[in-house]
Amino acid sequence: MKRITAFLASLLLAMGALSAQELTNFSWGQKPVTSPEIQNGSVTFRLKADYATIVKLSCSWMTGQDAAIEMTRGENNVWSVTIPAPEPEIYTYNFIVDGVSVNDPLNVLVQRDGSRYLSMLLVDGERSENYKAANKRGTVSHPWYDSKLLGINRRLTVYTPYGYEANPKAKYPVLYLLHGAGGDEEAWISMGRTAQILDNLIEKGLAEPMIVVMPNGNPDQQAAQTFDLPTTERDRRNQDNRNLYVRSLVEEIVPFIEKNYRAVAKKSHRAIAGLSMGGGHTITASGMYPEKFDYICPLSMGASKSPELDAQLQGIKKAGYKLYWLACGNTDFLFERANTLHDALNENGLEHTYYVSEGGHVWANWRLYLNTFVPLLFK
Amino acid sequence: MKRITAFLASLLLAMGALSAQELTNFSWGQKPVTSPEIQNGSVTFRLKADYATIVKLSCSWMTGQDAAIEMTRGENNVWSVTIPAPEPEIYTYNFIVDGVSVNDPLNVLVQRDGSRYLSMLLVDGERSENYKAANKRGTVSHPWYDSKLLGINRRLTVYTPYGYEANPKAKYPVLYLLHGAGGDEEAWISMGRTAQILDNLIEKGLAEPMIVVMPNGNPDQQAAQTFDLPTTERDRRNQDNRNLYVRSLVEEIVPFIEKNYRAVAKKSHRAIAGLSMGGGHTITASGMYPEKFDYICPLSMGASKSPELDAQLQGIKKAGYKLYWLACGNTDFLFERANTLHDALNENGLEHTYYVSEGGHVWANWRLYLNTFVPLLFK
Repeated sequence: MKRITAFLASLLLAMGALSAQELTNFSWGQKPVTSPEIQNGSVTFRLKADYATIVKLSCSWMTGQDAAIEMTRGENNVWSVTIPAPEPEIYTYNFIVDGVSVNDPLNVLVQRDGSRYLSMLLVDGERSENYKAANKRGTVSHPWYDSKLLGINRRLTVYTPYGYEANPKAKYPVLYLLHGAGGDEEAWISMGRTAQILDNLIEKGLAEPMIVVMPNGNPDQQAAQTFDLPTTERDRRNQDNRNLYVRSLVEEIVPFIEKNYRAVAKKSHRAIAGLSMGGGHTITASGMYPEKFDYICPLSMGASKSPELDAQLQGIKKAGYKLYWLACGNTDFLFERANTLHDALNENGLEHTYYVSEGGHVWANWRLYLNTFVPLLFK
Repeated sequence: MKRITAFLASLLLAMGALSAQELTNFSWGQKPVTSPEIQNGSVTFRLKADYATIVKLSCSWMTGQDAAIEMTRGENNVWSVTIPAPEPEIYTYNFIVDGVSVNDPLNVLVQRDGSRYLSMLLVDGERSENYKAANKRGTVSHPWYDSKLLGINRRLTVYTPYGYEANPKAKYPVLYLLHGAGGDEEAWISMGRTAQILDNLIEKGLAEPMIVVMPNGNPDQQAAQTFDLPTTERDRRNQDNRNLYVRSLVEEIVPFIEKNYRAVAKKSHRAIAGLSMGGGHTITASGMYPEKFDYICPLSMGASKSPELDAQLQGIKKAGYKLYWLACGNTDFLFERANTLHDALNENGLEHTYYVSEGGHVWANWRLYLNTFVPLLFK
């Protein structure tokens, strides 16, 4: 009898004798298969696939032809491959079984990137230290707010720092943190490890305790579609709708937060940052509302030269600000665009930091940027 | 050129011209493939699998040999099958590609069941009406509490009803809602649709506005393992540890909630309910602490006859209670055990409801039970 029977399995589950995870790997008298397994600088991936013809490993840390590595069939039809472990960071991967993508069923760590769920690999090291759980952890909440401008009920993700509940009189500054196209209000929490990064930075005394607000930047969506069905038919490709979202962010979400959370309602206590499309929202929001944010951080985004951009940058300069922190990877396909914004900031005489990292338009960079600029806020 | 290039795709994503979901289905000049598609009482599932030999559909609403239905290869290697739509409810399904389970990449609706992510099918109808989003929605939060009894920092899921933030002086009753073995603090929210069911019942005036607390019932876990790595080695198979969790629930979680949320700290304003293992926790907690809960609802669980059980039931009877609501499916493998508890309640003279439904040990029943007993609480 190789496999536990369904009835016995249900019984063991119900009695609490086995978790679902244990059950997946359970076979009488066989050593459980594990995947991924990091050992001596290598990482081994394994997948049981009885009837497959070709199984490949697809990794987020490799590109081009290297990104799909053939696996070898072994004993009991467990396919495996061992490769050098990548540098410390968080990565995603999946298997390709006869041409179809499959998550690693033996790995409970999963990240959600837009509509896809991806298996997660965390390689320990200095760079990934703050991506793991801290001892003192803040609360992640999902409140809804009614957007009159967009005509829909919309979902937010809000991080409140450790101690928020226990200190009912304390007030906090707020970082508005915006996702890219293809993401939603869960992107910075799932892919970005925002709760873990903030928890660690605050616990180590490197960052001020702060609230982080992560809205949904797709004006046609009520919420991450895994949770909710109806959406409007407002088209995000229309520039008016995109500005409508930025208006809703500043005129609806900011007041909602300052009414319902213990937030300091002052420019000096508001920061705005965003990646890619959210970097565009950051540039637009800070330009349209120069009196709102003292900390402005567009990530992996830039701008074209235009008289409108110059006018907006002059507005920001006139209103005053504490930090303009622009970041981009040196192989990002938007690097040129970021360079153009950097030049425009210089030409308009705006003091700023231009943080150029290795790499491209990837979450490894956005986690790095968050971990780097959050300690600079509200100081 | 059949597929959009990776570069162009990234650019369109970054510019907000395409969502990740649109991109998945994007091919120049081809009609996008959709799955699942419900039409005229049938449901069609489709999967593009270029190199597969056998593709099957596996459905939660079928059992035995019917549960895996062969799909047929069509144009462009899109495999499909059309079957009669099941009765209105929420179901899960996946594909089996050459022996390996795969989620439906065209379906953004996903539920998490323990360590597995499953594609979700919602069939509209009276029974599933409250499983969809209501207009007025409560907030789902994930606070952490320090368990001195278990020696770890642990994550909770907390639902606060619509209006909680806007009415800062209102106080609410609390339902403690416990998952089964193989689940965690996300089970009732993801598989159980607790937020949607509560939102709908409250919006329709059928239930009192209440806080719902969903702890993690595995004493060896800090949190759902998708979010966190470390676990203790405390073994849940040991009875002392299982009682330790129940102690932690009543002696640590209840005070944490009553300190940090606007909860009415009275027996008359506390309910406890749980499915399977959580039904066992409900029976144990109400028996060990007869002064704590006025509403007691074990679901798909029961008990063996024993002098200890009789003594606990006598304790509950003596302390007084408002509702004892026991539910089980008539094909549940624990039905006999539920019958035994029903008999013991009768023999000990405890007034109670025994709600027997069709079906077995499945989420369709647990959603039905939640939707049925919540209107009876705090009235």
